[in-house]
Parts: sequence; structure tokens; C-alpha cells
Amino acid sequence: MSVTTRPTRNGVDTATLFATIDAVRQQPEAARFRFRTQTEWVSGTHSRGRFPGFFGAGQEHVHASPGAGDAVIDADHPAVLVGTDTGPTPAELLLNALGACLTAGLGNIAAARGVDLHGVSCRVEGDIDLRGILGIDPEVRNGFSAITVTFDVSADADPATIAALVDQSRARSAVFDVLTNGTQVDVRVAAR
Amino acid sequence: MSVTTRPTRNGVDTATLFATIDAVRQQPEAARFRFRTQTEWVSGTHSRGRFPGFFGAGQEHVHASPGAGDAVIDADHPAVLVGTDTGPTPAELLLNALGACLTAGLGNIAAARGVDLHGVSCRVEGDIDLRGILGIDPEVRNGFSAITVTFDVSADADPATIAALVDQSRARSAVFDVLTNGTQVDVRVAAR
Repeated sequence: MSVTTRPTRNGVDTATLFATIDAVRQQPEAARFRFRTQTEWVSGTHSRGRFPGFFGAGQEHVHASPGAGDAVIDADHPAVLVGTDTGPTPAELLLNALGACLTAGLGNIAAARGVDLHGVSCRVEGDIDLRGILGIDPEVRNGFSAITVTFDVSADADPATIAALVDQSRARSAVFDVLTNGTQVDVRVAAR
Repeated sequence: MSVTTRPTRNGVDTATLFATIDAVRQQPEAARFRFRTQTEWVSGTHSRGRFPGFFGAGQEHVHASPGAGDAVIDADHPAVLVGTDTGPTPAELLLNALGACLTAGLGNIAAARGVDLHGVSCRVEGDIDLRGILGIDPEVRNGFSAITVTFDVSADADPATIAALVDQSRARSAVFDVLTNGTQVDVRVAAR
């Protein structure tokens, strides 16, 4: 009897990953997801974000608890920007979302390509001129003028192979796409 | 003796806020900020983000501890996407950054306009077709096709005034700008 085992590599169950991709290929409707977040204002520039669940693969999902279902993210401005620094700035939360997306992608792609990762760190830096958001100069944009991501990867692979993993993660990143290409955002105030 | 008190409204020290804007107007170099995040890969699609500090107003800053300096954000994919759901998805972290940015702006702008806020909640929803990131259909983008933000605001103001506060927050949001207009993102792999 011959048994084929597909290893869990880098903590990724690659057999299930490939099966999921095949399943979505057969049933494209399953790929429609709607993610949601809920932010409550606390005071001043301090707020708390929570993650009530999402729709996808044809049904509603509640996040795991303990885990994403219990996650609470405080956000605030620092003292130098007249906040109380009870949490990262929203601008940092944006950079962090990019780092998390590219790192998750790297984990999956390395596993799919049979590369064992030993360690990955991802530094994200964003340059911003606050004269935009402070309303001082209409020529200055509100957001980051540039973002730089620097990966440090230790893996059982040569530098060119590692660079190709990072490149593929960038090429398949949801957050990278939105940050570089933009998307439609509608802002509404609910009737009370 | 006459004493003029400028109230702290909505938890915002408006006198310091206006003084900060005036100071930056006098010294535009102070407006140059560089925010940073550091993400460490844990396993599979699970990572942890931290906030080591930032440069701004001419100097390096370390975040407050307890507060932003201690913040750790776990990110992961959910089970339906072959993750372990130990934290919100990077896509949700992106939506959460937008909710936090618009909510912080609303706090500041309401205070600056003399409007007392009683409560603010901000729901952010993002539609995404995962055939993009799964590499199934090259015609489908990786990121959100659309994002909808819905504010529910209780304040000492009429609906038109509240709507104008939200509109001004949108008009001065760093995260809204990047998500709608995009920006330059460079991804590098550090030499080891």
C-alpha cells in the first residue's frame, strides 16, 4: 500500500489550500466575500475597533473566540498630535494591515512552493506631510506620499528564490492592490 | 479679572489643537512624519504587528506605554481560508484603519466646531472577490471592489450639521485618501 502524505509546511495545510482553490474554481460564487469592522468612538481621537464576522463561501461566519472574534484594536493620535496615545495611529494601522497581508501571503506561497521558512520580519514605513490633514496647504495630499516595505526572510532557499516569493506575495496581495490602485469608498451617515 | 477658558470638548484639547496647527503653519518642516510598523511572521498566515515609534515634528518619538507602545496586533486568515483565525484578516485590518481614521477626525472636527458628541459608531464593509488573490481569474482584482462606511452619530446638532462633520472628516482623512487615490508602495527584501 502506498500512502501519499502532503505535509503541513510553514504551518500551512497545503492540501487544504489547493483543495480550497479548486473548490472556488468550480464554484466562483464562493469567492464573494464581504468583510466588516465596527469602530466605537471613545473620546477625542481614541476609538476601539472590533471584528463582528464576515460573509463568504456562501454564508455568514463568526470569527473564532479566543482569536479574531475577541480582538479589540484601540486607535488614537499621539501626544504630539494632541491625542492620548492609547493605541497606534490609524495611519500606522494602515501600514500594519499591509505588513500583515504581505506576510500571510509569503507564508502561503512559500508552503505552496515547498520552501521552509525559518523567520520573516516585515518593516513598513510611510512618509506623510501633515500639512494635508491639518488643512494648512491644499497642495499637500492627506495620505502617505510613499510607503516602503522591507522584508527580512530566513528560509531554506537562495536569495533569488526568496525574492520571488516576496514578489509573488506582492502580486497577490489584497491590501497592496488597494493601497497602490485605490478603490471606491462611500461614506454615509445613517438616519437616526 | 477676566479668565477665558477654552473647554476640552469631546475629550479634545481644542486650544492645543489650534496652537499645534499654528505652529506647523509657521514651521512646515514639523509636518514631515514617518510612521513605522514591524510585523513578525508566527506560522502559516498568522503574524504579529507592533508599533516601534515614529519620526515627526523634527524628532523621533516612542509611543506611550501602556498604550500604543505595547500594542500587539495578531492577524490571520480564518479557517474557511485555511488559516487559524487567531486575529482579524489583513483585509479587515485595512477596513478598521479607515474606521479609526474617520472616527478620530470626527472627534477633532466636532470639537473644533463646538459640537458635543454623545456617541459615534462607524461600520465599514468591504466587498472582495477572492478569485483575484487565489489566482483563479486574472480579470478579477486582488483588493476590495468597493468599501462602504456607515456612521451612526449622536450629538448636540441637527442632522445637516452632523453630516457636514462626517463630510469634513472624510475630506481630511489620511487613510481615506490612500484608499481612494492610492500611493506609491515599494517592496524590498533586505540583504542578509
